[in-house]
Amino acid sequence: MNIIGELFGYIAGICTAICFLPQTLQTIRTKNVDGLSLLSYIIYCTGLISWILYGLYIHSLQMLIFNGIGLVFGGIILYMIIRRQK
Amino acid sequence: MNIIGELFGYIAGICTAICFLPQTLQTIRTKNVDGLSLLSYIIYCTGLISWILYGLYIHSLQMLIFNGIGLVFGGIILYMIIRRQK
Repeated sequence: MNIIGELFGYIAGICTAICFLPQTLQTIRTKNVDGLSLLSYIIYCTGLISWILYGLYIHSLQMLIFNGIGLVFGGIILYMIIRRQK
Repeated sequence: MNIIGELFGYIAGICTAICFLPQTLQTIRTKNVDGLSLLSYIIYCTGLISWILYGLYIHSLQMLIFNGIGLVFGGIILYMIIRRQK
């Protein structure tokens, strides 16, 4: 179970990092943010920032990297929602 | 730093759990899934399932709860995207 357990951790971390890459590319391409929830992306980015701060607290480089990459995509989407809603 | 560090962990966990609640409500209300990326929600839900399995592996009840709640909302959004795209 050890290796499989660790594997799930890595799959989970990679998914956390890249899950909103396709959404970012789609939103940049289509500029369609109508269906996206501003509040959800505010909470999502707040969560990622909190995970990064928690990662610093527990000295987890992996947590910093995975959530840092995720924050780049979440931040881009959040920026586009705010810009289009003005 | 101990209490503040733990606090970041709880804020992060709560954000993970509820971040896509507003998105879920908005998508149910508007039925507008045009701007939502199917692939992103597939990866997002895969990540949450992996975190749940990892939570079982490290015996973390909090990880199970936070990601389990998140998966409910992510799963509803994913279901609506798939249904509308048929």
